[in-house]
Amino acid sequence: MPEIHIIPVAGLPEVREGDALAALIVEAAGQEPGIEPGDVVVVTQKIVSKAEGRIVLLDSVTPSAEAERLAVETEKDPRLVELILHESNRIVRQRGPVLITETKHGFVCANAGIDASNVGPEGLVSLLPEDPDASAAVIRSGIQERTGADVAVIVTDTFGRAWREGHTNVAIGAAGMLPFADYVGQTDPHGYELRVSTLAVADELAAAAELVQGKLDRVPVAIVRGYAYPHGEGTARQLVRDPENDLFR
Amino acid sequence: MPEIHIIPVAGLPEVREGDALAALIVEAAGQEPGIEPGDVVVVTQKIVSKAEGRIVLLDSVTPSAEAERLAVETEKDPRLVELILHESNRIVRQRGPVLITETKHGFVCANAGIDASNVGPEGLVSLLPEDPDASAAVIRSGIQERTGADVAVIVTDTFGRAWREGHTNVAIGAAGMLPFADYVGQTDPHGYELRVSTLAVADELAAAAELVQGKLDRVPVAIVRGYAYPHGEGTARQLVRDPENDLFR
Repeated sequence: MPEIHIIPVAGLPEVREGDALAALIVEAAGQEPGIEPGDVVVVTQKIVSKAEGRIVLLDSVTPSAEAERLAVETEKDPRLVELILHESNRIVRQRGPVLITETKHGFVCANAGIDASNVGPEGLVSLLPEDPDASAAVIRSGIQERTGADVAVIVTDTFGRAWREGHTNVAIGAAGMLPFADYVGQTDPHGYELRVSTLAVADELAAAAELVQGKLDRVPVAIVRGYAYPHGEGTARQLVRDPENDLFR
Repeated sequence: MPEIHIIPVAGLPEVREGDALAALIVEAAGQEPGIEPGDVVVVTQKIVSKAEGRIVLLDSVTPSAEAERLAVETEKDPRLVELILHESNRIVRQRGPVLITETKHGFVCANAGIDASNVGPEGLVSLLPEDPDASAAVIRSGIQERTGADVAVIVTDTFGRAWREGHTNVAIGAAGMLPFADYVGQTDPHGYELRVSTLAVADELAAAAELVQGKLDRVPVAIVRGYAYPHGEGTARQLVRDPENDLFR
């Protein structure tokens, strides 16, 4: 097993709608660290949403009666609640100010992943990318065009979890790799089949990247170098448990 | 932000009850990579349980009537079910063969974290350490005695999650660091308070370490070097959400 390096990529400019993120990332990575074949390029959701124009001015939103009602219960801005409902399949849990929903992608998280931090002037919020797997694929092909390097790309966001305090960074989009390392049928050194057969390595890579990204989004990209990720055309959507098999949804 | 290196530590011998893990880890780390002040030493649960004698011969277990009943429902060995119940506060969910419990520590995971892989001859299973935070503290002080290096130690296991497929490595024990990086009250570059205020960095470190450990437990230890972890006397127990505030337990 070789060492793995988690390399922060700083120095990206403020991202604007229509920007080609691949170009900005390749530019910021420069000669050093550069981007090499086999790297995993991990990109935070925020700059993807900015590039894709998924930024909404709250003043442009008209809340429905349902949003107005839920806004009182959750002590949130009714326009924000309107956006949360619009981005969600359904509310999974609501208690006090906590509003956990299932997004259109199937992700279960607070407030449908809508975030008011690091977006810009007050009253702007960022929605999750409409199709974060497609976002990852576009970044990946853009990097390959510019550098020739075949890489994997993961788009991340920080979500809360059931049962455990604190947020962790997870994969909401992926391209160029399988999200799982699959050990089904493999045996341990004693000849017994492994209990844990499937590791969500895309989420583990997202978590690893967060350690160099910090929280102020000044380091929105990290490169994980030296990890032999499972090759194939996978998506982060595969990480979403089928609601029918989910005992907690 | 500096680079972070995730370094596998291979070459530990088969661990036996009573072994001083700190000595084995320091020996295996050798001169290169060695152990340096500020490293996070990440140790898989399995070798901790072995060193602490938390290995049980199934033949030594007499199942209760409740275990016998639940064994039929879950198609598990009744002696294993007896151990699961003994190690648990309560069953959180059960459907078909899936048995998710809350362990005595408060962790929510399948089968109370009891595992039959990589333990040795058939009929042996490993229980989680009784107090994994204490296990981490013992390893930490043992490393400091032998090397003089002040490090953080995390004991890990791979758990499933709600809503998302696949397992990820998480912290079940910690010493020498706080499990959270806390951003409460900090503002982003635009002056807005951050939505995500608390990151469970102990879990993110555990996840990062898994990427070099592989699944066959031949690399039971990893060093995370270059991460400025939050200093303080924290525990992994702090990661457990108070059941009263947990909407999914």
